[in-house]
Amino acid sequence: MTSSTSHRPQRLKVQNFFVSRDGVAAGEDQSLECPFGHVDPGPLTVWAVETASWPNRAEAGGSRGLDDHIVRDFHHNIGAEIMGSHKFSPYRGPWENEDWKGWWGENPPFHTPVFVLTHHTRPSFSLGDTTFHFLDASPPEALRIAQQAADGKDVRLGGGVTTVLEFVAAGLVDELHIAVAPHEIGSGLRLWDSPVDLEDQYLHESALSPSGVEHHFFWR
Amino acid sequence: MTSSTSHRPQRLKVQNFFVSRDGVAAGEDQSLECPFGHVDPGPLTVWAVETASWPNRAEAGGSRGLDDHIVRDFHHNIGAEIMGSHKFSPYRGPWENEDWKGWWGENPPFHTPVFVLTHHTRPSFSLGDTTFHFLDASPPEALRIAQQAADGKDVRLGGGVTTVLEFVAAGLVDELHIAVAPHEIGSGLRLWDSPVDLEDQYLHESALSPSGVEHHFFWR
Repeated sequence: MTSSTSHRPQRLKVQNFFVSRDGVAAGEDQSLECPFGHVDPGPLTVWAVETASWPNRAEAGGSRGLDDHIVRDFHHNIGAEIMGSHKFSPYRGPWENEDWKGWWGENPPFHTPVFVLTHHTRPSFSLGDTTFHFLDASPPEALRIAQQAADGKDVRLGGGVTTVLEFVAAGLVDELHIAVAPHEIGSGLRLWDSPVDLEDQYLHESALSPSGVEHHFFWR
Repeated sequence: MTSSTSHRPQRLKVQNFFVSRDGVAAGEDQSLECPFGHVDPGPLTVWAVETASWPNRAEAGGSRGLDDHIVRDFHHNIGAEIMGSHKFSPYRGPWENEDWKGWWGENPPFHTPVFVLTHHTRPSFSLGDTTFHFLDASPPEALRIAQQAADGKDVRLGGGVTTVLEFVAAGLVDELHIAVAPHEIGSGLRLWDSPVDLEDQYLHESALSPSGVEHHFFWR
């Protein structure tokens, strides 16, 4: 393993992870039409979508304050991503074919190797400068492989919520940024009952943005 | 002029600029021993010094919350810096020799071309991967030269306070991040009477960090 940042170890980071005030990140009823199930992602993501640095921004403009600083940090020193199979695809079980290439069109916003955790592996493929690999591996194994691919840089844990909870429970996550929207959902896949749930493993601080989103930072 | 970020023009940005609650950035009595004159920079910079990303950090550790996200944004898409002569040196008038290489030791934290505005030019020199150039130029001329050197990236306006005010008055600055410390100084070189002073030229928002510093963001 080489290191381009000599004096610091590679960290595993959750970044720009969106939840409601009551801790819900997605519905359990994901489908092709509804990547977040019954949960409308709009109210959870609006703070990020309105920034100048939002990757899918269609026109010039956008805010350049606190939220923008957080959004544009997404790529900072990141050399690979790990994601769960539900972040990659709405399909379950063996692949009928390999037509599905993810939700992100011809130029996915990752621009690094991405490792999709799945029991149903398939050949790697590239879209833009993102390459998707498929791993049937435990969290520690997946992290080791992603760190090698990241060439000394940090690794992003991209979600979904089940994958984040699994890696946190395994003690593998070094840092999390969770953006709590001022919006209640009620039911669905929950990251936490309260941000305090993570304080046994992490230092924790939060800051309220003028947009109404509360940024929670956890690190060890 | 080439552009590595095709759809956005090059911006001129002030970043991590430290002032007291009463708007003071430095004393008027700068000397070799006291780069900020009678103003002790400690209480103005402590929020940044305690982060994991502070460039002069001697040992591992440091916070990884809001302040750290702001500090580590310092290099984001920056291709050159412009600074005033007092940021570079405590000396006034013609150079007696060229021994002075700046305050930053053998590896200055800029890692780009730096353009020092001075009526007393001298040959360029490099330290680490920073190259210092000396320009006797107006603010618009200096900006044009720095943008060419930045190769499509943004340009940082590094200070000091007199230089920032001069470029703002000339309408050349696109974006400012000013960190207001919870600390009064009373007299010295002042950036403003109040952050509201800049609202005629800029959109403005602020956010309070858990460290006590108030981050003010201005953009147009």
